[in-house]
Amino acid sequence: MSDKKMVDIIHRVGIKAPASKVYEALSTVEGIAGWWTRDTSGKSQIGKTIVVRFFSPDERELGSMTMEVKSLEPGRKVQWTFIAGPEEWIGTDATFDLQQEGDYTIVMFGHRNWREAVEFTAHCSMKWAMFMLSLKELIETGKGRPSPHDIKIDNWN
Amino acid sequence: MSDKKMVDIIHRVGIKAPASKVYEALSTVEGIAGWWTRDTSGKSQIGKTIVVRFFSPDERELGSMTMEVKSLEPGRKVQWTFIAGPEEWIGTDATFDLQQEGDYTIVMFGHRNWREAVEFTAHCSMKWAMFMLSLKELIETGKGRPSPHDIKIDNWN
Repeated sequence: MSDKKMVDIIHRVGIKAPASKVYEALSTVEGIAGWWTRDTSGKSQIGKTIVVRFFSPDERELGSMTMEVKSLEPGRKVQWTFIAGPEEWIGTDATFDLQQEGDYTIVMFGHRNWREAVEFTAHCSMKWAMFMLSLKELIETGKGRPSPHDIKIDNWN
Repeated sequence: MSDKKMVDIIHRVGIKAPASKVYEALSTVEGIAGWWTRDTSGKSQIGKTIVVRFFSPDERELGSMTMEVKSLEPGRKVQWTFIAGPEEWIGTDATFDLQQEGDYTIVMFGHRNWREAVEFTAHCSMKWAMFMLSLKELIETGKGRPSPHDIKIDNWN
């Protein structure tokens, strides 16, 4: 189809905390388990993999992804490439770029290189926004909303 | 710049209500004031304009937009084109496509034809997600979170 175009999901959030705190929540398995999904395992080291599994509140497994850690720059950047999971995710990247602005650490989040914009892309865009909010709440209040306690947004979760 | 590409923000939400209820919240000034911003005025009729103004909790004006109503298909679709507001928004479209799936009305939201993906695009993507959540809450619980009571996500609001 000639009207296909590469698609990126991008979100900006500002978190009232030092970049080192935000980086910790993005660069460690324990950190990720605090905002994305409780069922996070693996090793957060360059070239190693992390597995995230998602459940509904009644413990039905909804899906899982495996990502390879591509970049870990303390206080500045975390990048993953998805190597297993939903077909649409394979080969896509998630990037978290951090920078300090006054009292805030700004997170520029991107989930890039979707092959096309499908309904699932729109679902994931909305879910990533909920998880970015969860990341912000985890760091600012000590309590995030990782799966299975994530905000449900449609009939696919 | 050769690597510029047209950019779309797309979000999917599912609301437990008939499409007619969701349509009402999108196609009337009173409805929009319940989830986007309290300060909504104008006429929701094809070819007419609606003005939305945003304030911080301490009543500082943060910005405003004017949109022309392009499409009103009861229970199915609402479309606006932005004709005044932030420079990046001029000429972009917001579209809400509705369809019933079981107990849910699925809203496929798109804010399309951004000229490029800038940091402000990422801010707006995150804000639209918060407002889609507000729309869902308005319809499911009777209480949305329109500006100035919207969820704040960074240092730009």
